[in-house]
Amino acid sequence: MTDMVIELDAQGGRHLYEQIYDYVRQEIREGRLSCGERLPSTRSLAEFLQVSRSTVDLAYEQLLSEGYIEARPYKGFFVCRIEGLYDLQRVQEEQKERTEYERPHFRFDFSPNVIEPEGFPLGVWKRIVRETLIDENRELYTRGNPQGDIGLREAICHYLHTSRGVNCLPEQIVLGAGNDYLLLLLEKILGGGRIVALENPTYKRAWQIFGTFAWERVSVPLDESGMRPDKLRESGADLAYVMPSHQFPTGVIMPIGRRMELLRWALEKEGRYLIEDDYDSEFRYRGRPIPSLQASDAAGRVIYIGTFSKALSPAIRISYMVLPGELLAGYRERCGFFSSTVSRVDQAVLNVLIRDGAFERHLNKMRKIYKSRHDCLLECCKRYLKNIRISGENAGLHLILHYHGEKTEEELLRQAADKEVRIYGMSETYIGRLPENWQPALILGYAGLDEDELRAGVRLLSDCI
Amino acid sequence: MTDMVIELDAQGGRHLYEQIYDYVRQEIREGRLSCGERLPSTRSLAEFLQVSRSTVDLAYEQLLSEGYIEARPYKGFFVCRIEGLYDLQRVQEEQKERTEYERPHFRFDFSPNVIEPEGFPLGVWKRIVRETLIDENRELYTRGNPQGDIGLREAICHYLHTSRGVNCLPEQIVLGAGNDYLLLLLEKILGGGRIVALENPTYKRAWQIFGTFAWERVSVPLDESGMRPDKLRESGADLAYVMPSHQFPTGVIMPIGRRMELLRWALEKEGRYLIEDDYDSEFRYRGRPIPSLQASDAAGRVIYIGTFSKALSPAIRISYMVLPGELLAGYRERCGFFSSTVSRVDQAVLNVLIRDGAFERHLNKMRKIYKSRHDCLLECCKRYLKNIRISGENAGLHLILHYHGEKTEEELLRQAADKEVRIYGMSETYIGRLPENWQPALILGYAGLDEDELRAGVRLLSDCI
Repeated sequence: MTDMVIELDAQGGRHLYEQIYDYVRQEIREGRLSCGERLPSTRSLAEFLQVSRSTVDLAYEQLLSEGYIEARPYKGFFVCRIEGLYDLQRVQEEQKERTEYERPHFRFDFSPNVIEPEGFPLGVWKRIVRETLIDENRELYTRGNPQGDIGLREAICHYLHTSRGVNCLPEQIVLGAGNDYLLLLLEKILGGGRIVALENPTYKRAWQIFGTFAWERVSVPLDESGMRPDKLRESGADLAYVMPSHQFPTGVIMPIGRRMELLRWALEKEGRYLIEDDYDSEFRYRGRPIPSLQASDAAGRVIYIGTFSKALSPAIRISYMVLPGELLAGYRERCGFFSSTVSRVDQAVLNVLIRDGAFERHLNKMRKIYKSRHDCLLECCKRYLKNIRISGENAGLHLILHYHGEKTEEELLRQAADKEVRIYGMSETYIGRLPENWQPALILGYAGLDEDELRAGVRLLSDCI
Repeated sequence: MTDMVIELDAQGGRHLYEQIYDYVRQEIREGRLSCGERLPSTRSLAEFLQVSRSTVDLAYEQLLSEGYIEARPYKGFFVCRIEGLYDLQRVQEEQKERTEYERPHFRFDFSPNVIEPEGFPLGVWKRIVRETLIDENRELYTRGNPQGDIGLREAICHYLHTSRGVNCLPEQIVLGAGNDYLLLLLEKILGGGRIVALENPTYKRAWQIFGTFAWERVSVPLDESGMRPDKLRESGADLAYVMPSHQFPTGVIMPIGRRMELLRWALEKEGRYLIEDDYDSEFRYRGRPIPSLQASDAAGRVIYIGTFSKALSPAIRISYMVLPGELLAGYRERCGFFSSTVSRVDQAVLNVLIRDGAFERHLNKMRKIYKSRHDCLLECCKRYLKNIRISGENAGLHLILHYHGEKTEEELLRQAADKEVRIYGMSETYIGRLPENWQPALILGYAGLDEDELRAGVRLLSDCI
């Protein structure tokens, strides 16, 4: 038995028992105390170190808990057999650089996927948060319903009915922290081995997400009414992911006739569903909102997904999925044990925001702002840019510029980037080969830039387009 | 061409164009205007109805957008061919009753999965929220990094290093809205066809969640040091999900020797990983915290998962996963496009909470409260209950009562329920058959009940145990 010459520091911040524990642990890890060796008894070590016996007891107990030593009755404490104990002067070989999704600098970014951050209704949100974070609401700090709070689901149910014609009960609504998460749940609900059809071109992130599923993906071409039912049939798909009210990126609105055709397709075989992504339906600047596809679905074949990311902020992670009644049992069985991903405080605040009308007022305000930006961008493009035809107006948060000049899409993007303007090529929204007779086209989002910026950005673009 | 006798209500809240749109749409949907029929010209209808022409234009435009009518150049507007248009006097057949995860009433619920809701540091959280929701932080309302905000990841990185010995860089941390979500991501990162081994008994929800994966599950028995490596080898698993610092439900602390054995198992074959769920490691009432398994892993074989649900509140949906460097490329490729599920405001608030020391102070306070409850429950059980042996003390938020009387576990649970006391049977945490010589055992959580409630609850139990 070795002597334990431990230099104890009674003044330091560390407990004496911790210092003893550290010393012995280090001796074992570095092989100076080896397997089977007996440790001094707690009494003798306490005397030797001039500390109380309970201090040594505590140190030994910790070593016991962690498995460095073992107690043999009537015999004392012994170092355990620990194979392969290597000390970890861990060198962090991983690249230290922060690649971290950084992008080159642009003065004007016409991204179709951002919204105006100044638009977030901070004042009213803050007021409701203040009213929500009170002692009377302690219930909020418990786990909550996996589908989301029933109060908020009721508010969303009513909102969807009046604004989007969606017919559902709060029981059919599942809240989640973003559409991506809800799609992950959907994979579990619908099970593996599915074939999902997406419009071509489409929202590329949905394509990527489905790519992580135990599903097959197929792309189905669009015509001027949306996804082609003949090609959908040929594809062998049993699920179709569509954006009927404002297709991304084309802006195509699916007419009622095509909607009925797709619903008929879904009804032809057991287990077929349409996944309706109603991603930016709040923003339409002429006439009434286009009703949802779910509103025309009497047979429970539409899974409806929407989000508050565009209407409120992508930072508030709340999306909703409306499941057909038929899928509810499957949801409860296969996903009912997943904890909700949505912050309960955010749920409570959003509930009040919708119920007291502040959400509707916020939407009206943003619609006005985005309509002005839409009009401004449209006018600037018509005025300053050559060789273009514009489509996808009057709704959403972006325009499409069809280009019939001599440059390639890549050249246009690069020349814009040289001017520190970021625009987006529509070819990137296609799956696989581009259509025959493809002409370059550009996607210009206007939600993240104010009118001065839009004007300045388009003027810079006029040098290359 | 039929006459359009539309009764317009100029006083009502609805726009005139909407009333015209509604009328025509309804005529089409109910078959009174049929496919191919020509509509009156906008001029003649405007004259007939005594409204401005732009009102009719707007109504027709909406009908065009939604695909009810089509415009034929030089000829006018015609009703579209819409097959299968059925009107939807949708009867909501779904059960109206709100099953909604309701539970029978209990006066005292010894759930091991709840924490003290009064413990949430509402005052300081509120203050930080107030300081965070300000105009200068507008950047917060944009999308944010998919892995979580770098500031918070740095704070967590430092916290994990000092409190749990975890060695990592902020780049290795992925934040998510709960452990369940992080496990979903992990399925995508590690790919299908895996075999995951869980301790038996285990945390049943993890077992259920893995059950939704394209993985196989196996259960591996525990001994007094944790998961048995011989049985793990036999199982053919390439992943092992373990809780080394405080196994649920047994409370077993995996000694350093066993940890090394498991790490060796992981190193024997390419692609093997240990998933360490460090679910309640903050709560240990004697000695120092047990270091994490990740702290002993020099080779990058441990995927470390932890949560703020127990320490702060299950309502704040923030968990973290530390990926070995080797898995980062796979994460970025297969999951880098998934939007973060965590509210950015919550991330910002938690970041401040950790950095200014309030989180540590909160933990110390809760540790004190839970230690008192632990001591109180322990004492009451020893005093009032018969035929029991207690295990799993000094850490976590629950105790195990091994029962060696004559009743079955089911009888004990039922008799407790008759007294309106909810206790939990340990047999439910087993996968498959119970071990030979199984004796009933009960799980009693103490985090959700104060000392008076614990005392009263145990007294009620003393009638049946």
